[in-house]
Amino acid sequence: MCELLGMSANVPTDICFSFTGLMQRGGRTGPHKDGWGIVFYEGKGLRTFKDPQPSSQSRIAKLVQEYPIKSCSVISHIRQANRGGIALENTHPFTRELWGRYWTFAHNGQLSGYTHLETGRHNPVGETDSELAFCWLLDELERKYPTKPEDMTAMFRHVAGLCDQLRALGVFNMLLTDGEYLMTYCSNNLHWITRRAPFGPARLIDEEVEIDFQKETTPNDIVTVIATQPLTNNEQWHKMQPGEFNLFLLGERIASTDL
Amino acid sequence: MCELLGMSANVPTDICFSFTGLMQRGGRTGPHKDGWGIVFYEGKGLRTFKDPQPSSQSRIAKLVQEYPIKSCSVISHIRQANRGGIALENTHPFTRELWGRYWTFAHNGQLSGYTHLETGRHNPVGETDSELAFCWLLDELERKYPTKPEDMTAMFRHVAGLCDQLRALGVFNMLLTDGEYLMTYCSNNLHWITRRAPFGPARLIDEEVEIDFQKETTPNDIVTVIATQPLTNNEQWHKMQPGEFNLFLLGERIASTDL
Repeated sequence: MCELLGMSANVPTDICFSFTGLMQRGGRTGPHKDGWGIVFYEGKGLRTFKDPQPSSQSRIAKLVQEYPIKSCSVISHIRQANRGGIALENTHPFTRELWGRYWTFAHNGQLSGYTHLETGRHNPVGETDSELAFCWLLDELERKYPTKPEDMTAMFRHVAGLCDQLRALGVFNMLLTDGEYLMTYCSNNLHWITRRAPFGPARLIDEEVEIDFQKETTPNDIVTVIATQPLTNNEQWHKMQPGEFNLFLLGERIASTDL
Repeated sequence: MCELLGMSANVPTDICFSFTGLMQRGGRTGPHKDGWGIVFYEGKGLRTFKDPQPSSQSRIAKLVQEYPIKSCSVISHIRQANRGGIALENTHPFTRELWGRYWTFAHNGQLSGYTHLETGRHNPVGETDSELAFCWLLDELERKYPTKPEDMTAMFRHVAGLCDQLRALGVFNMLLTDGEYLMTYCSNNLHWITRRAPFGPARLIDEEVEIDFQKETTPNDIVTVIATQPLTNNEQWHKMQPGEFNLFLLGERIASTDL
């Protein structure tokens, strides 16, 4: 059913620790072996690493694990295929341009009765429900906001309302970012944690790796990690509720269903 | 002033040999140290590797050099910045969706008096003349062909006419692909070679590497490589003329200014 991983931080931060845990779920400690991808933003630009091969065996995933690329906004996905075959064009995350910025999206879940959704000029390339849903979101946003809106928080609240419509068609857990803001939407499985000073040790569930974040950070760092299931077994993760959305900026949660 | 590298092949082929030569020109045997990128197509999907760091020192370029990714259509670019600073969003190649396919573009050259070019809904993200020119091409194509045209060769001839307009604004050497077709357009510097049976040895100019293609290929393989300057010193490369375009499909040249 796939797993998601995201990060929002106020300083460029690498995600090697969390990605090391996630990677194992792509074929070793988990069944999500039908491809993986990760997108790192640096300013307005981004780098994508993708492979239709299982992450636990991928040479490219190994590079990402060992080569610390620092970023303030990251989305990653490991796939267990349902809609759409195993192929690069069906591998998340998906990236499209809107309002002169690159938008990146990843989905965990499965939709039914979705093929009626209009995507306008944002054509899917692959065959997944996920990519089509993303194209639909972009089309809806472009119709409502022909140019980039002033009030981005209000715009993301509108996206949450659109996600409610998608959730009515099945399971729709989502991460969405423009490189600055990172939005989460939960159907059934999504967790988050914000790490800030005083930092402490963290222990991965899927690999024998422990890290002392106090040695890796400064007292001003704020780093939020989002994952389908908690990646560590010694920290307190928040579990999101069905229909809950959260909006993060520079690591801080700035809006939510309840905020 | 940048260098381009492209490949069109009738069987998935790796570009490690040519890329090894090109890499050196990004900071060692050449001055193109302001970032590099490469796009490999696999079916309708693609993989992008980019770095704003010089290719001759890039860890990611080293992976690409050593990890043979097989593809029928590849575009690569090493940059010497003029318009737009050194940043990931200004690093070629650029990829956008049109007609449900990913289109990839790279440019070598510099334009002036181009900011009036309309790009419609295809907004540039970075600050280069190159990306803006690409967005203008996409907008022009979408206006003329609201859906994917039947006659792709005629469409590419139309693109060549659009490139003539860009060439009037400065230096415009270009590679453009949708993963199937690969088009080249020359202002001043672009060369190509089609390798087919009987294959022979090839010797790089920029690195002490020689390969015997006969050991790497089957008799049916057809592989065209395009480069700003020839990469080998023992083969016969064709030099393109100003205003010349060529269209390749599965390694064969199927259309040209003269064909």
